[in-house]
Formats: sequence, structure tokens, C-alpha cells
Amino acid sequence: MPTYRAPVENVRFLLDDVFAFHGRNNLRGFSDASPDLIQAVLTEGAKLAEEVLTPLNAVGDRQGCTRHADGSVTTPDGFKAGYAAYAAGGWMGISVPEEYGGQGLPHTINTAISEFASSANLALTMYPGLTQGAMAALLVHGSEEQKATYLPKMVEGAWTGTMNLTEPHCGTDLGLLKTKAVPNGDGSYSLTGTKIFISAGEHDLSENIVHLVIARIEGAPAGTKGISLFVVPKFLVNEDGSVGERNGVSCGSLEHKMGIHGNSTCVMNYDGAKGWLVGQENRGLNAMFVMMNEARLAVGVQGLAQSEVAYQNAVAYAKDRLQGRSLTGAKAPDKVADPIIVHPDVRRTLMGIRAFNEAARALVLWTALQADIGHRSDDAAERQKAEDHMGLMTPVVKGVLTDKGFDNAVAAQQLFGGHGYIEEWGMSQFVRDARIAMIYEGANGIQAMDLIGRKLPKDGGRAMMGFLAEVQTFIKDHAEVEGMAPFTAPLQAGLNDLQGATMWFMQNAFSKPDNAGAGATDYMHLLGLVAMGYMWARIAKAALARIAQGPSPDMDDKLVTGRFYMERTLPETAMRLVRIKAGAETTMALGAEAF
Amino acid sequence: MPTYRAPVENVRFLLDDVFAFHGRNNLRGFSDASPDLIQAVLTEGAKLAEEVLTPLNAVGDRQGCTRHADGSVTTPDGFKAGYAAYAAGGWMGISVPEEYGGQGLPHTINTAISEFASSANLALTMYPGLTQGAMAALLVHGSEEQKATYLPKMVEGAWTGTMNLTEPHCGTDLGLLKTKAVPNGDGSYSLTGTKIFISAGEHDLSENIVHLVIARIEGAPAGTKGISLFVVPKFLVNEDGSVGERNGVSCGSLEHKMGIHGNSTCVMNYDGAKGWLVGQENRGLNAMFVMMNEARLAVGVQGLAQSEVAYQNAVAYAKDRLQGRSLTGAKAPDKVADPIIVHPDVRRTLMGIRAFNEAARALVLWTALQADIGHRSDDAAERQKAEDHMGLMTPVVKGVLTDKGFDNAVAAQQLFGGHGYIEEWGMSQFVRDARIAMIYEGANGIQAMDLIGRKLPKDGGRAMMGFLAEVQTFIKDHAEVEGMAPFTAPLQAGLNDLQGATMWFMQNAFSKPDNAGAGATDYMHLLGLVAMGYMWARIAKAALARIAQGPSPDMDDKLVTGRFYMERTLPETAMRLVRIKAGAETTMALGAEAF
Repeated sequence: MPTYRAPVENVRFLLDDVFAFHGRNNLRGFSDASPDLIQAVLTEGAKLAEEVLTPLNAVGDRQGCTRHADGSVTTPDGFKAGYAAYAAGGWMGISVPEEYGGQGLPHTINTAISEFASSANLALTMYPGLTQGAMAALLVHGSEEQKATYLPKMVEGAWTGTMNLTEPHCGTDLGLLKTKAVPNGDGSYSLTGTKIFISAGEHDLSENIVHLVIARIEGAPAGTKGISLFVVPKFLVNEDGSVGERNGVSCGSLEHKMGIHGNSTCVMNYDGAKGWLVGQENRGLNAMFVMMNEARLAVGVQGLAQSEVAYQNAVAYAKDRLQGRSLTGAKAPDKVADPIIVHPDVRRTLMGIRAFNEAARALVLWTALQADIGHRSDDAAERQKAEDHMGLMTPVVKGVLTDKGFDNAVAAQQLFGGHGYIEEWGMSQFVRDARIAMIYEGANGIQAMDLIGRKLPKDGGRAMMGFLAEVQTFIKDHAEVEGMAPFTAPLQAGLNDLQGATMWFMQNAFSKPDNAGAGATDYMHLLGLVAMGYMWARIAKAALARIAQGPSPDMDDKLVTGRFYMERTLPETAMRLVRIKAGAETTMALGAEAF
Repeated sequence: MPTYRAPVENVRFLLDDVFAFHGRNNLRGFSDASPDLIQAVLTEGAKLAEEVLTPLNAVGDRQGCTRHADGSVTTPDGFKAGYAAYAAGGWMGISVPEEYGGQGLPHTINTAISEFASSANLALTMYPGLTQGAMAALLVHGSEEQKATYLPKMVEGAWTGTMNLTEPHCGTDLGLLKTKAVPNGDGSYSLTGTKIFISAGEHDLSENIVHLVIARIEGAPAGTKGISLFVVPKFLVNEDGSVGERNGVSCGSLEHKMGIHGNSTCVMNYDGAKGWLVGQENRGLNAMFVMMNEARLAVGVQGLAQSEVAYQNAVAYAKDRLQGRSLTGAKAPDKVADPIIVHPDVRRTLMGIRAFNEAARALVLWTALQADIGHRSDDAAERQKAEDHMGLMTPVVKGVLTDKGFDNAVAAQQLFGGHGYIEEWGMSQFVRDARIAMIYEGANGIQAMDLIGRKLPKDGGRAMMGFLAEVQTFIKDHAEVEGMAPFTAPLQAGLNDLQGATMWFMQNAFSKPDNAGAGATDYMHLLGLVAMGYMWARIAKAALARIAQGPSPDMDDKLVTGRFYMERTLPETAMRLVRIKAGAETTMALGAEAF
């Protein structure tokens, strides 16, 4: 049975030592988040993940959800109690403003907790995760009345939320959507259509489900310019805030999926369901996009989360499994064989995942911190810089962390040999669960296109120029610092590749957009590699500072892990650059009929 | 519902144009294999795969196998008929000598057919596949009596075979095995022990199951030097060759696996089961190793097979799914959107898989041809060269084709967006089925260690020197040939990286074996990349020869696909070299307690 231990200490190190989290009292809510409080929150979050959510992970996979003839859906054994514990702990509203019952803490903390929970039980965590997404949309775009009606109940966990975008014929291309909204004349609309892949669309965990649905108001323009956002509760809400009559929305069927079996993925049928406009008419996609950055960041975290839990279990197995002898002589001569962790190829795998996990966690927390700054700073220049960062890094965190998180889960599974393929060991579930994160919230190819087509050229490339300058400045400032050369030198090489690629696109993609499309995924990974290399350089700086205060084997290990990244992972940038510079010619040359 | 079309034409092109298969009449069995016969065999094999095996693939995944209280196992609906068709077609004995009822055709042809069958239905194909493996062991090591007793029935398909190596505490490290064989005094032995992960260990497809089992004869030396191979039939065989009483071997349980659900993966209990020694006492591992080359080649083919079928279905989806518009203007203006095959990132994925599949197929057929030469040539020098190649390339075909085959199945699944994650679309099954090929028949890390620790230094590095010289000669001979430069130039760069890595190991791995271990997987992939690059260069040569005879759009497309490989896939060699040269330091520096 797989186990999990939340990396509380690593989060603390990143917040305290690397990102100076507690020096940011100029941000609303940060001064309340004292180091002691943060420690207490992380410890409690870890406990929830380790003790409540982890034991429910395998059963969720095995049982999955069941839809009954009346359209109701039962979640796996124990999910109700697990969800109740999640809600009772106040985790749902951890960064929701206090006026709606939340705790108003930084989103950064919420992000750390969501890694723990996603590692422990991705399928279960998606129920509150979707609720948080729906709350974020309502917070930004909902009317005061909508916020007052829905948010307190959602923060409490009494009601959950969903996002309804996809239809059978449209996923990426939402302009094709057909779900129709007809005004009822009383301020409400009547929604009709079918939505698919609706996570947490129907279940038995809460008394009401608040669906956020995009639809086209009758007569609205075709394409993306005619899409509006609606709130459609499963049960209509009475004047007094209590749950009233059933609305015309129901779960038509459950999808049979590769993983996340414990989450109910529904086909949702809207048959004249009553809904209310959220935000402005025909501005639904805009409302969605605001929320998407945070949702995509959360999905990136899921990639890291599966990588982390798979790593932990692979480490345990590699220390326990006796097979063969070390190439340099027996390490456990009293045993029939050495534990497989002595073998360099096993180490290579573990070090590769470990080096990714620490850098990815840093990138995630750093980016979440930018989200906080963007939302909470009073300084317009600081806000702009933070928002630039957030926009640029969101597709990277989503795309790269889920691609590599999946690869890492596969690599961790590999160390188990045949046992990794047997469901009882749990490694298969990590792989199958990790797979979805590459797909939903915008498939990773879409993230790459978003990065290169939208985020890169935005504001004359300001965000990217800012990132390049920041990393270059860091290198310049630290290249001569003792102990930093093993980090700054490879980082410079990676940065040069990133600059080279950016330049190449400037010269070759405007005139031939296919050159951008053909290189988009490589560019996304190139930026991710450099961003994580930068994270390692900053971690190294913090580790060296700790070591300067006194010997620290932990910090020594961190430096080794960082050098592993620099020597073995980061050089992938050169390959990415070569592919980008190959351009679109051979990619696009064949006629479609040749396939 | 996924579909499949066997690449008969591509196999013909590779055999006829690239490898001059029909010019090898000096090899036993080759002169019988006329072009017409080969065409007929491939066409029939394609028909079996497309019409019989493909329709049973999804049902096999959905239903899996069922073990009953009496230990018997039922295969999924239709598997009996599918297996019967396989057997009736004579496919089991296609390259078994005619004296045992086989057709004596080249193993190369068997390999081509096994790709078709594995694409169509991996789980079902494993039943005859294991039978072929068991037959290969009996052919080489069995006594005349054993061959006469078992082979004709197995060729016929009336009896199937298995390989029993793994035990709960030993997979890779077979020296730890505990299954015991006690002489009965009548030439037979009594076997007792537990074997796990036994594919096709028990089922309802055949009247008898011939288990090949490794065990330790009472009093034999510890470790790998005390292992013997036995044949243990499920039902003892009467004097007249008919099936007699039940032997003491039974299926204790079925594993619940990530994929290949249609194949019964059994825990096999041997309770004083009667067995007979195959080959010499205590030489069981040797007997196994002989057979392993071909078994590992077959597993490499499975990696290619899943990549191919996943590719075909991704192509169909990409041509059909309408979403978004081409970056260079609408390509299907009459439709609501363009088919997604217009998008460069989708093309990149498809071209990457396509370029892999053609080169991998070439590498597989070339290597199978070497197996034929090794077994059938009368020329000792030619045999040695072929066996060198076979030894060197076997871990590469197994390790690289299954690693990349899996990656490709994942990439193909990705093009389906959310639909890829839903079981009904079948892409998840390809991914889950492909996953096992990286594990069984020696996990891929073991393949890398086999390559670097055994195959590379063998006979003073003769095999590797031979390969490097062959590729170098090809480049020299063709660099100036019109149209070949786009192939020979990048191939030279890749070859230089391979030479550099080989040299680095010679200088750094003998004194520090961990340097070999830490670079083994990268070296295996580096060799695979270059070998497939060489295949593309040879394919290009053949394509140019065809074009010289007259215009051929197919051959033009082949050249584009090959250039895609050269420009975008092959440059990965440089990254592999950098990683290898990083050595073992950071990989091995941490103490085990630091993990």
C-alpha cells in the first residue's frame, strides 16, 4: 500500500529561505500569516493529506463512482468522510476573503496545501479543487448578491462547484459551443445543451452543486464573442439561502476513464435549467480566462504532486528490495543481495525525479506568490511585474510540470519491475492519475500555443524580456560568489539557448507562423528547463547561506541534487533549441492524405 | 472503436529495397521464401490481425481473465476463436523446422507478422508468443524425445507454452531463486516452489500447457550457477503422446494489472510437480539466455506495435476532429473548423511517431535478419558478424523501442484531448498495454546494463567496433551521392557522439564502474538513435533509387519523414553524450538515508 509524507520542511525552506515570504507584509493578508501560523497550517494540511486522504486513494481507484438510474452518483467508500474532513478543516476557503467565511491567507499557502492533498488523493481533492475554481470565478465576476448567495456555503463545503466548458464537438475551440441560454424575462435564463467531461458534476458529497456554465445567449454573435458565463445551481436557492427545488440539470452518464476513478466525470444535460448571468453578456470567455491562470497553476501542481508521491514510494521500494550487488562491491554483505538503491541506474532515476520535484515546487510557490502580489499589492509596478510573470509562467507550470510529472511517475513505477504493473502496488494509479493533468484545463499543446502565440508577444514581449533580464542579473550577481559557479555557468548556457530560441522566433515566426507552431512545445519545455534551473540557482544560494551558518548535511545534499539538475537535466535546452531552429518545413511538408 | 491496418507495403519495401532480403538464397529456408510467397504470407497475416485479432482487443481489456475456484482460468469472450484462428493459420510454427510441423520460413517473416499481431491485440498475441519462446528453448536445448513430444503439438497450437523465471523475491537477480527440484530416480524431477508474473500460465485456449521452469536441483550450488531448466507439462503426456493425468502445477491467483488484461498473468504453484531436465544440469540460465535474445527482440517489436497502432488511430482522429483554424488561414473553410491535422503541434507529434515507426521497423527487420543469418548461414564469418549484431542490438531494440513506443502511445493519446482519457476510445488501452513491454523480459534498465556491461566489452568490443565501422563506411560511400547529404551529415554528427561516448566509457568506466552504470540508459538510447538514423539513411538510399526510376510521391514523403528524423529526433544524441560525460558523481553522492 503506497504511503505519503507531505514535504512540509521543503515548503518552509522555500518560503523562508528562498523567497523571503515573511518579508512581504506590504501584501494584504501576509502580515496575518506569521511563520508560526504558516507552520501550523502546513502541519495540519500535511496531517489531513497523510492520515485522511492517502488511505482513501486506492479504494477510490478500485471502486470508482456509480451512477444510479435516477441520475444520482455515489462516490467511493470513505470519500464522504474524507471530503467532510477537508471541509471541516476550513481548507476550502483558506485564501477566500474573510467576509465570505474564508481565512484570507495567501494563495501561496493554499497552493502548498493543494500539492499535499493532490499527492495524497487526486480524485478526492478535485471536488474541493473545482469548488475553489468556481469560487474564484464568482469572486472576480459575480454580483454582490451572487457572492453572498454562494460563497459562504461553498467555503463551508456544504455546496461544491464545477466548471462546464467542454461539449462533445468542442474542447479547445470553444467558439463552436452550442449550449443555449434563453432569457426568462425575470433576470434569469433557461439553459439547454450538453456538457461533457464535467469533473465533480454530480456526487453525494454536498447538499448542492454550483455549476458555472458557458453558453450562448439566443441571438448572440457566433464564435467566442458570443459566449456568456452562468451560474446554475443543482438545487435552486430559496430567498432565505436554503436549498429549494431541483433545477433542470442532471448527470446523463459517467465516463469510464483511465484514472482519477474516484472523481465523477459527468456528461451533464441542461434541459431548460435556470441560470443567472455571471459578469457581462458575451464576455464569458474573458471571465473564464481570468480564472484559468489559477486553475492551470493548480493542474501544474497536480503534475508535481503525482511525481512527488510516486518518488516517495519508489524510494521506499528501492531501499527495501534486495536484488543484485553494487558494482563497487557488496553494500549489504549480510543480506542475500543489496537494496536496489545501490545501482547507479536506479539512482539516476531517483535523482532525476528528486531534482525535478524540488525545482518544480520552487517554481510553483514562486508563481503562486506572484499571483498573491498581483492580487494584493498596492504598488502598481510590482503588480504589473507579478502579473507578467504569472501570465508567462502559467502555461509553463501547467505544461511542463504535468508532462514531466507523468514521465516521473512512469520512471518511478519502472523501479518496481513487474510489481509496478500490478495494481495492488499503487504505482499504476499514480501513472494513470497523472495522465489526466496533461490533458485537462487545456491540453499541453494548447499551453505551448498559448505561451508562444499570446504570452510571449504580449506587451511587446515585456514579460519574457523581464524574465530573461532577471535571470541574467542573478547570474551576473552570483557568478563570482563562492560555490555558485556550478549553478551560474550551466544556467548561463541554458539562458543563452532560451535567448537564441526567442530571437529565432522573432526572426522566423512572424512571417511564417507555422515556425512558431512547430516549435511551441519545445519552447515551452525550454523555458521550463531554464526556469527550474534558475530555481536551483536560487535554492543553492539559500543553501550556501545556511551552510555558512554551520554544517548542514541536508543543505549539502540539496547542492548535490541541484548540481545533478544542472549537469544532467538542464542540458536538454540545447536539444530543444536545435528542434526549434529546424523550423516547420519537414513538419508541415506532407499532404494530409499522406498520413 | 480503434482500427488497425497492417503495414504490409512498408515491410515489403524494407525487405525488398532496403535489405535485399530475396538475394539471400544461401540461407536455409530463404530460397523457399519467394517474393510471391512472402507477399501471400504477409497478406494473410495482415488479414488475421485486422479482421480477427483487432475486434477482440477492446473486449479483452474490458473483461480480462477470470480465475475460478478450481484454479481454472477463462479468457475473454472471443479469445478462444481468435486463438484458434491463429493456430489454424499455421502462424505458431511459421519459422519452426518442417520436421516438427512448422513451415521453416525465415524468422524475419515471423517477426513482421508478430508486429501485425501485437498491434492488433497484444494480450491475445502473447499466448502464441510465449509458446514460440518455449519452442525456441526446446529446439535448442531439448532432447530429441522432448522435441518430438512437445513441438508438433505446440506448432499445431493444441498445446501452448510458458516461461517460468520470476519468484516473489527475485526477478532480475535469478541467483536468489528458491524453487526446488528433487530427482525422482526415474529421470524425472519433483518441482516445488512459487513463480509469479507467469504470462499465459493458465487459460482455456489449449488442451495442455508446457511450462518451462527454472529451479535449483537439491544440493546444487547457490546463485546462478545452480539453476537448471525443466519442462513441466500441465497434464503429463502419455506414451502415445496423448494428454494424461494432471500434474502438480496450478494457478494460485491472477494478477490485477495496469494493462494486457486479456492475458492471464498467473501466480503458479508447483507442488511436487513432475518435470524433466532440459539441457544440462545447472546450465539453466545459459539455456535461458540463448532464448532471451529472440524473446527480447519480440518485446521490442511490441513497443513498435503499440506505437504503430496508436499512431494510426491518432491520424484518423486528427483528420476527423474539427477544432480551430490553421495558422496560415482556413484549410476547410466550408466546415465549422479545420481538422486538427492542420496544426503544427499536432503534425509535430504525428511526424515524430511516424519517423520513429519506420526506422524502428527497419531496425527490427534488420536485426531479425541477422538472427536468421546467425542460425542459417554456412559461412562462419558471416554468422559471427550476424551474432555480434544480434547481441549488440538486442538490448537496444528491447529497451529503446519499448521506451519510445510507450512515449509514442502517450503522445498519440494526447491528440485526442479528453477523449484520449476515456476508455471507450481505446487510446488508454494502447498506453496501458505498451507499458508492460518496458518491464518484462528484463526491465529496460537491465537492458542498458546488459548492453554496457556485457555486450559492449565482449570480444574486445568487436560488435560495437563493427557497427561503428559499418555506419562510417556507409557515410563515406554516400556522402557525395546526390540527395544523401541531409542524411549522411546528421548521421555523422550522431555517430561522433556515439564514438565519443564509447571512448569516454573506455577511459572512465573500467576504473569507476559507477560511471558505466550512471550512463548506461543514456548510452542505450544514444545507440538506438544512431542505429535508427542509420536505418533512415539506408531507407533514403532505397527511396532515391526508386525515385530515379520514376516519380514517386510515396518515396518523396519517405525522404521528408527521414529528414524530420534527422533534424528533430537524432540531435538528442548530443544531450545523451553530455549526460554520460557528467559521470556518476552527483548520481551516487547522496547516502541512502538522504532519500
